[in-house]
Amino acid sequence: MSVVTAASHPTVCAPLPVLGRDVTVPLVTGGEVTYAALDYAASAPALQRVWDDVAAYAPYYGSVHRGAGYLSQLSTDLFENARRTVTEFLDCREDDQLVFTRSTTDSLNLLAAALPAGCQVFVFETEHHASLLPWKDARVTYLDAPRTPRQAVETLERALAARDPHGPALVCVTGASNVTGELWPVRELAAAAHAHGARIVLDAAQLAPHHPVSVRDLDVDYVAFSGHKLYAPFGSGVLAGRADWLRAADPYLAGGGASRKVTRREDGGVDVEWHETAARHEAGSPNVIGAYSIASACKALTEAGFDALVAREQHLISRVRAGLAEVPQVRILSLFGDDAPRVGVISFVVEGWNSSHFAAALSAEYGIGVRDGLFCAHPLVRTLLGSDPQTQGECGAPEAAPGEKSLNAIRVSFGAGTPDEHVDRFVAAVRELVTEGPKWTYRTEEGRCVPAV
Amino acid sequence: MSVVTAASHPTVCAPLPVLGRDVTVPLVTGGEVTYAALDYAASAPALQRVWDDVAAYAPYYGSVHRGAGYLSQLSTDLFENARRTVTEFLDCREDDQLVFTRSTTDSLNLLAAALPAGCQVFVFETEHHASLLPWKDARVTYLDAPRTPRQAVETLERALAARDPHGPALVCVTGASNVTGELWPVRELAAAAHAHGARIVLDAAQLAPHHPVSVRDLDVDYVAFSGHKLYAPFGSGVLAGRADWLRAADPYLAGGGASRKVTRREDGGVDVEWHETAARHEAGSPNVIGAYSIASACKALTEAGFDALVAREQHLISRVRAGLAEVPQVRILSLFGDDAPRVGVISFVVEGWNSSHFAAALSAEYGIGVRDGLFCAHPLVRTLLGSDPQTQGECGAPEAAPGEKSLNAIRVSFGAGTPDEHVDRFVAAVRELVTEGPKWTYRTEEGRCVPAV
Repeated sequence: MSVVTAASHPTVCAPLPVLGRDVTVPLVTGGEVTYAALDYAASAPALQRVWDDVAAYAPYYGSVHRGAGYLSQLSTDLFENARRTVTEFLDCREDDQLVFTRSTTDSLNLLAAALPAGCQVFVFETEHHASLLPWKDARVTYLDAPRTPRQAVETLERALAARDPHGPALVCVTGASNVTGELWPVRELAAAAHAHGARIVLDAAQLAPHHPVSVRDLDVDYVAFSGHKLYAPFGSGVLAGRADWLRAADPYLAGGGASRKVTRREDGGVDVEWHETAARHEAGSPNVIGAYSIASACKALTEAGFDALVAREQHLISRVRAGLAEVPQVRILSLFGDDAPRVGVISFVVEGWNSSHFAAALSAEYGIGVRDGLFCAHPLVRTLLGSDPQTQGECGAPEAAPGEKSLNAIRVSFGAGTPDEHVDRFVAAVRELVTEGPKWTYRTEEGRCVPAV
Repeated sequence: MSVVTAASHPTVCAPLPVLGRDVTVPLVTGGEVTYAALDYAASAPALQRVWDDVAAYAPYYGSVHRGAGYLSQLSTDLFENARRTVTEFLDCREDDQLVFTRSTTDSLNLLAAALPAGCQVFVFETEHHASLLPWKDARVTYLDAPRTPRQAVETLERALAARDPHGPALVCVTGASNVTGELWPVRELAAAAHAHGARIVLDAAQLAPHHPVSVRDLDVDYVAFSGHKLYAPFGSGVLAGRADWLRAADPYLAGGGASRKVTRREDGGVDVEWHETAARHEAGSPNVIGAYSIASACKALTEAGFDALVAREQHLISRVRAGLAEVPQVRILSLFGDDAPRVGVISFVVEGWNSSHFAAALSAEYGIGVRDGLFCAHPLVRTLLGSDPQTQGECGAPEAAPGEKSLNAIRVSFGAGTPDEHVDRFVAAVRELVTEGPKWTYRTEEGRCVPAV
C-alpha cells in the first residue's frame, strides 16, 4: 500500500466539510485507509451543512400544501422558500417557473413532454444519455461531435438554419461534459439558438456543482440539474425556465396536487382543472426534504464563496493533470484540447490496461473510488476512444492483454469537499499501478471487476 | 387551552418512536403544547428507526450502479437489498418486478404509461386523484360510488362484462380509502377482474402503512404505495407486480441507467438498447436514501409485529369514533357504514362549522394537526357531503354561517406512532369547540384559514 501524503501546498480555500470524510475502507492488501471519494460526477457526498439542515428539520416534517396543522404549514413554507432560494441561486428571470423534479433525467423528460407540437430538437451526440434520449415524440437531429467550441456554434447554426419546416425548436446542451469536464460555449450557443428562433435548455448537472450558473447571463431558456451531484442526495432535481411551455403542457404526472378541481360529468366522465403554477407538474406529495436539501446546498455554496471554491477546484485540476502528464501511458480524453476551461471531471485510459481492472485496483489497493465505463455517454466515449461500437460490451473484460485497446475509460472527479490528499493519493496510485502493476489479481463477478479471493 | 390527558387505558402495544414526538408548538391562546400529528394520511412522521438507519448510512452514500469504489458498491448492494426487502414485505410473486418510483402518484403514472395498446381502465369515482387521473391514453370507465363492498364487486363485474371490445383491461382500486379509511374488498375485486380477463392494481398508499399487504394472497397484479405515508419521507415510492407489461413498455424515463447500449447509426440517428429489468424504468441516479428508508420502515413494522400495530390502531379508532359519537353535531363520512373494517383515517363535518375554520382552531388552540379540504378525492367527498360541485370552491369561506352546509370536510388520521394522548386530546378538543366555540377569531390568508391578529 502506498499512500502519498501531499507536501504542504498553498490551497485557495479549505474543502467544505462533507459526510463520509472520516470513513475508512479495507484494503485488499491489508489495513484500512480513509476513503477517497473521487466520483463526484456520479454522486457527490452530502455537505455536512446540508445534512445538519435536514436533521434539524426532520422532526418538523409534515405534509406540504395539504394540512391545517402547524408542521404542515411550516413544511409548506419551507418548501416554497426552497423554491425561491434555488430560483435566486440560478439567477432566473422573474417570470420563470421552477419545478422540483427527481433528477436532471426527470427534468429533461418533463421538458420533453412539454414541447409544443412540431418542435424539433437539436442535440450533440456528445451529450449524456439524459440529454440525448428523452425527446421521443420530437424529430431529433443529432449533431456530430465538434472539436472546438467555435465548431460547436457553427455546427448548431447550420443545422438550425437548415431545419425544414422552420418551426419551433429546442437545443439541448451540457454546461460541462460529464466525460471530459470541458465547458461548452453555452452563452454563444444560446445566442445562436435565439438568432435562429430556437430555445435552449442547459443541462447543468455537471456545471451547477462547480460553477455559478446565471440563467439571465447565459440567456438560456431552461436549466436542469440534480441535487445528488450538488451535495444534496435526497432524491430531488430541478427544472427552471420559461413558464409558457410548462403552463400549456399536459401535467407531467396526473394526480393530486396538480389538479385544482375534479368533477364528474353528467355523461359519466370526469372534468379536471389543472393548476398553472409549478404544482401542475409536481403531482403527489412533494419531496420536501429533497427540495430543502437542494436549497441548503445552494446557500452553503454561495455563503462559502463560490469563486473561492472554483479557484480551489482549478488548483486540484492542475495537480491531477500535471500528475497524469508525467505518466506517458495515460491518455486523457478531450474534445476541445488542453487549454479548454473545465471542471473537476477527467476521463482517461491507460495503455495496456483494461479500465475496469484499473479502477478496481484503485479501489481495492488504494481506497480510491472512481468510475469506469462509458459514463452514460456512449457515443461520446466511443468517439474519444476511437473504438468500434459493434464489437464492444458495456464493461469489457478485465483480463484484456497488455497493449490491447481499452474498451472503456476511467473517470476521476472531485469538488468542493475534496482535500488535496485525495487527488495526490490518486496521482501517486496511478503512477505506481502503471510502473509496478497491481499487487492483487482480479476477476469479473456479476459484471463487476473485483479482487479474486 | 384544554388538554385532556388520557386516563390509564390498557393499550395493545406501545406506539413506535417517531421523529417529532417531542416537538412543541405555540398556541394562539398562549403557551406551548406538544404537537399532535394527526395527518398521517397525508404524510406520516419518520420512524426513529428509519431516521437512525438513514443517518448511519449517509456517510457511506455513493453512486448506485455506477462506480468502482467501495462506497459505490456498498450503496449498490444497499439499494438492491432494499428492493428485495420491500419485495418480501409485499409478499410478491417470484417473477414480479419492483420499481422504485417517487410516490404512489408516480407509480400509477408509470403503470398508465405501460398499459398495452387498447387497454381499458375501470376505476371507481371514489378513488384518490392519483388513481383517478393518470390513465390519459386509455379509455376509462368511471364507476359510481358503491354503498356496500358487495355492490362494488357487482358494479365492477357488470362493467367488465359489458366492455366492448372485450380486450385488455385494468382495474385500479384503493385498499383503504384516503377519505373514509374503509377497507375495500380487494381480494373479491381481484377475483372479479381476473374472471373477466382483466388485471388489477392495488393503490396501497393508505393500506400498506396500516395493514400487512400480500400480493399473493390478495392476488392483485400490481401494487403501489408511497414511502412518505409509510414513515419514510425521503422521496421514494414503489410499483411492484407482473413484469411482462413493464418489460414491454417504453422506458418511463429515458436516460442513463435505463439504457444498456446507445449507438450512433450510419444515417445519423441513434439506436438504443434498453434494460429489461426494473432499471428500465429507473433512469437517472436512483434515490438510494429513499429506497433504503422504505426498506428500513418495512423491517421496522415487521419486527415490531404488524398484528400488534393493527390491534393498537383499532383501539385508537374505537376511541376516536366513540368520542365523536358523543358529539351529535359531528357527522362521520362513510360509504360502507359503521361496521366496515377500516384503518385510522376518519373524515367528518361539524354542523354549523366550516371545516377549514374548525381545522384551523384545532391547530391554533390545541396544537392538533389535521387536514381540511376535499383530500384529492373531489368526486367522493362531494358524493359524501351531498354538495353541488358547481357552486363550491376548493376551500370554502371560513366565515360560513352556523347551520350552513360545509363545503369540505375535516380528516383526522393516525398510525403506528400515535400515542393515546393525541387522539384523546383531539376528541376533547372537538367536544369543547362544538360546545363552547372557538376562543379566537380566524380569517383567510392566501387560501389558508389562520388566526386573525
